[in-house]
Amino acid sequence: MPVRQLVNDPADLVPEALRGFARAHPALVRHNEDPAFVVRARQEGAKVALVSGGGSGHEPLHVGFVGEGMLDAAVPGAVFASPTAYQIKAAIEAADRGQGVLLIVKNYTGDVLNFQIAAELAADDGIETRTVLVDDDLATDGQDEGGPGRRGTAAVVAVEKICGAAAERGASLDDLLALGERVTRSARTLALALASCTQPGQDRPSFDLADDEIEFGVGIHGEHGVARRPYGPVRDLVGELTRPIVKTLELGHGDSVIAIVNGLGSTHDLELAAVHGELTAILDDLGVDVARSLVGSYVTSLDMRGCSITLLRADDELVELWDAPVRTPALTW
Amino acid sequence: MPVRQLVNDPADLVPEALRGFARAHPALVRHNEDPAFVVRARQEGAKVALVSGGGSGHEPLHVGFVGEGMLDAAVPGAVFASPTAYQIKAAIEAADRGQGVLLIVKNYTGDVLNFQIAAELAADDGIETRTVLVDDDLATDGQDEGGPGRRGTAAVVAVEKICGAAAERGASLDDLLALGERVTRSARTLALALASCTQPGQDRPSFDLADDEIEFGVGIHGEHGVARRPYGPVRDLVGELTRPIVKTLELGHGDSVIAIVNGLGSTHDLELAAVHGELTAILDDLGVDVARSLVGSYVTSLDMRGCSITLLRADDELVELWDAPVRTPALTW
Repeated sequence: MPVRQLVNDPADLVPEALRGFARAHPALVRHNEDPAFVVRARQEGAKVALVSGGGSGHEPLHVGFVGEGMLDAAVPGAVFASPTAYQIKAAIEAADRGQGVLLIVKNYTGDVLNFQIAAELAADDGIETRTVLVDDDLATDGQDEGGPGRRGTAAVVAVEKICGAAAERGASLDDLLALGERVTRSARTLALALASCTQPGQDRPSFDLADDEIEFGVGIHGEHGVARRPYGPVRDLVGELTRPIVKTLELGHGDSVIAIVNGLGSTHDLELAAVHGELTAILDDLGVDVARSLVGSYVTSLDMRGCSITLLRADDELVELWDAPVRTPALTW
Repeated sequence: MPVRQLVNDPADLVPEALRGFARAHPALVRHNEDPAFVVRARQEGAKVALVSGGGSGHEPLHVGFVGEGMLDAAVPGAVFASPTAYQIKAAIEAADRGQGVLLIVKNYTGDVLNFQIAAELAADDGIETRTVLVDDDLATDGQDEGGPGRRGTAAVVAVEKICGAAAERGASLDDLLALGERVTRSARTLALALASCTQPGQDRPSFDLADDEIEFGVGIHGEHGVARRPYGPVRDLVGELTRPIVKTLELGHGDSVIAIVNGLGSTHDLELAAVHGELTAILDDLGVDVARSLVGSYVTSLDMRGCSITLLRADDELVELWDAPVRTPALTW
């Protein structure tokens, strides 16, 4: 018997949800039904356009980040499946304002391939693109020599926010590529799950855990992590996520970070706030300045329980772009 | 064995989470540790102050709604337990700017009692208060003659938003009371659960459901609803929630509403968007104009799976106040 979720036919969930989503934000976004993409409701003035996308099930990513100061369009695939090159190409065309299009792609084989084909199709039509490949997941660092490399996870929010701000100010396509690559290079993420997620229509989660276990180093598609570890107090779990990131980014006294504490789907605000408290305690002890924090469920894995921590080594320029105005369904300041 | 959550000692969760929350929003809120309350970081100019509060476990309610255009202070109790009168009184004092304080109280016996005592203590110190009692839960309408009356649930967000906007514009304490009572009177909510919630430190949810059942008419404290009904497609479930509200508010062709589709804790954005799609389809059919929508998890019941639907009969004044700028951790536009 399928797990109870608020769906009709699971095959219709994504298109039905997109319709309901767009209807809630008519001032911000417009939803194209076929091929499916979401684009800003208002597109005025010349600027480089930002287009992202990927499988659904990670909401509010990416459709929730379409709007002033962030994305120009987002392309949702089926749950945990890449959008097609045809969809992506249509979104590129809808977003383009004649200054070129920056593609922000999380590092997954299907997404990389389809965005690449779409970029080639767009080039044939005279639209210039550049691609920022986001690969921040430290759990997959160094795995599989010659394999796909690190996965892209919650740092994509920082790439979209920071490049989005720069694009509004008239940054060129090449400048935005360099900026996006700098953010990606300066950010790492680690995640853990207390319980896995269930695909709509399925009768059980994608993996099971014993009462005293957590899954360490999970991605955002319900796949297994890199290790099974003992469950423990949030203080300990946050330490396990944070220390490897601090080490990799070589963060120390006097350094500054933008921190993202991200819920994976079913993690309560109280828990995420507690995670943020533990994270800042660790960084305070190290003398690392937490310049800005984003705490909430922004890059989800359906109804997975757990969280990710992303640290982005920050400087005045990145913080200033982070602070710039943004007005999207999921992020506004 | 307790259900795995991101906590240290469950008894410390609320204070630890408040610390982590305030640390994430230093530009917006200040957290007073003892007695515990959250107040705006900046308090400039004379205006009526708005104070709300109640048990924790409903986040982002209420602490997430402290900021310009909404609350001046929020008072969190322990999980699902009222804050003390002493806490509330301290928050009233911290929020007061000499023009009186509007108390926004969800209708639960403990909250009503403690806010009333706090109001009396504040009066002794020369601070005038008025209390808006929010009792929008249609599931508890007409239950228990002489009992506590309807529970207060997600309509409290609309009361806080709309009264918050009016307060910024200089509305008087009595005008705000009348406005808050008008919003409350014009709004009804119904909720259902697909799975109940688990209190931190407990080893099981507050109630169990069979695979083919839902709990209809739940509140926000993990208590049983008013009926057990068959699970079905979201289309049917949304109809069951919406029709009684439409009937009670006597909504028909040409009427206008503000709609709140609220996740109860572990409901994915895709599902909430699907709910919103079904809700607007029903209202479209009836000729009821959906003037504004708020879709997300705003009034939660820990990790409960399910949703509530709130409809507020709207007019130009209420929509204009709804649209007014707001800048809080959980709601900004």
